Amino acid sequence: MVYQLYYWPTIQGRGEFVRLALEAAGAPYVDVARGDAEHGQGVPAMLALMGDTRQPHPPYAPPFLRHGKVMVAQTTAILQYLGPRLSLVGKSAAAQLWTHQIQLTVADLVGEVHDTHHPISSAHYFEQQIPQAIERARAFRGTRLPKYLGWFESILARNPANADATRACLVGARLSYADLSLFQVVEGLHYAFPKAMRRQMRQYPLLARLRQVVPRQRRLAAYLASARRIPFNEDGIFRRYPQLDA
Amino acid sequence: MVYQLYYWPTIQGRGEFVRLALEAAGAPYVDVARGDAEHGQGVPAMLALMGDTRQPHPPYAPPFLRHGKVMVAQTTAILQYLGPRLSLVGKSAAAQLWTHQIQLTVADLVGEVHDTHHPISSAHYFEQQIPQAIERARAFRGTRLPKYLGWFESILARNPANADATRACLVGARLSYADLSLFQVVEGLHYAFPKAMRRQMRQYPLLARLRQVVPRQRRLAAYLASARRIPFNEDGIFRRYPQLDA
Repeated sequence: MVYQLYYWPTIQGRGEFVRLALEAAGAPYVDVARGDAEHGQGVPAMLALMGDTRQPHPPYAPPFLRHGKVMVAQTTAILQYLGPRLSLVGKSAAAQLWTHQIQLTVADLVGEVHDTHHPISSAHYFEQQIPQAIERARAFRGTRLPKYLGWFESILARNPANADATRACLVGARLSYADLSLFQVVEGLHYAFPKAMRRQMRQYPLLARLRQVVPRQRRLAAYLASARRIPFNEDGIFRRYPQLDA
Repeated sequence: MVYQLYYWPTIQGRGEFVRLALEAAGAPYVDVARGDAEHGQGVPAMLALMGDTRQPHPPYAPPFLRHGKVMVAQTTAILQYLGPRLSLVGKSAAAQLWTHQIQLTVADLVGEVHDTHHPISSAHYFEQQIPQAIERARAFRGTRLPKYLGWFESILARNPANADATRACLVGARLSYADLSLFQVVEGLHYAFPKAMRRQMRQYPLLARLRQVVPRQRRLAAYLASARRIPFNEDGIFRRYPQLDA
């Protein structure tokens, strides 16, 4: 059954975490809001579904996924739903719980990255909150970023499977959706904060390895090289504003 | 098997969402960091566990829960783990997924409430970021708060079980952990933003009903009247700073 992903069509944003999972697994999916209005797709189709008052489980916001009769929103819940179906999570309850917990921490970090450029209001432009963004980004780079990166490095270090130097897995010895998401976050952080990341990443060799290893997966490599991969830009979560980096 | 909850002992904070579930279910639990050092409890015991490098699944931050060999952090994951064990979630996969998705949205709202008093840095005091907090709180009250409350009201309205005017359930016809969490959020919002909430809540009769109905549950009522319920205070997530309300 084809997966239908609903997300804004011109940014990676939170939808990209779902796209990466679907692409890495080679799952059949439609990126609905990027489709043609002629085929009942596009942004209007997404907004119509969000505004449909007969929908018993309306999403609070994109991304959301339809799969048969299931409709699920919230990136972390979508990935938890997809994980076993796409073989992107371990089979044991313990592995699934730990992978989900890691993903929730990725989501927290993503929220904090967003707020570096929108510390006051997501309803206003970055240009309307630059001084506050500079302050928040300084605190983020100085305190929060190393705390998150240090935690991810520590859990990579505690995974015995990573004793093999060709491997960098968060959970067990196989690629999980959390690995894909962490790859995306590390890429995004390099895009948004190139100076801070160049300096800080020296302390995180396993994170650096994950960034090298994950995109070698055949299907993922093909996706990243394709036009389906929207480039990072200044409308998404990871934005390159030189004022916010140092 | 006794549940061991680890959370800061002097605030409700994110731990309170877990406490409410354990209390409403009458589950045997120890609030470890509130215990005596003589019994191997207290904050030092919590910090020791967090700093234990042999721990394969270290929490990024409190709250976290131990249950036999399981250790799980992240409020939403803890509640998802507890839900079926405490009969605080429906039995079907669809009900569990929807409840979890709602809980993730509660978590997003809680994060935004926190940032009204800490818009720049959680490593600094509120008093060091008051002008920015005033701006962020204005945007929160004006845009974000009605969006969240409106969504919760709409999903309460779409639950056919709530046609019975004595009931206010997010999912199905029985109390779920998401109901407990939403009750806590609405209480907290009334504490932090009494003026804004008094005005806005007129539009959300089902949310108001949920706030009345949930605390009538016998065990929850006993908990809320006990010394185990830490009062709201200005170290937690919901803080009453008059500058931030209007």
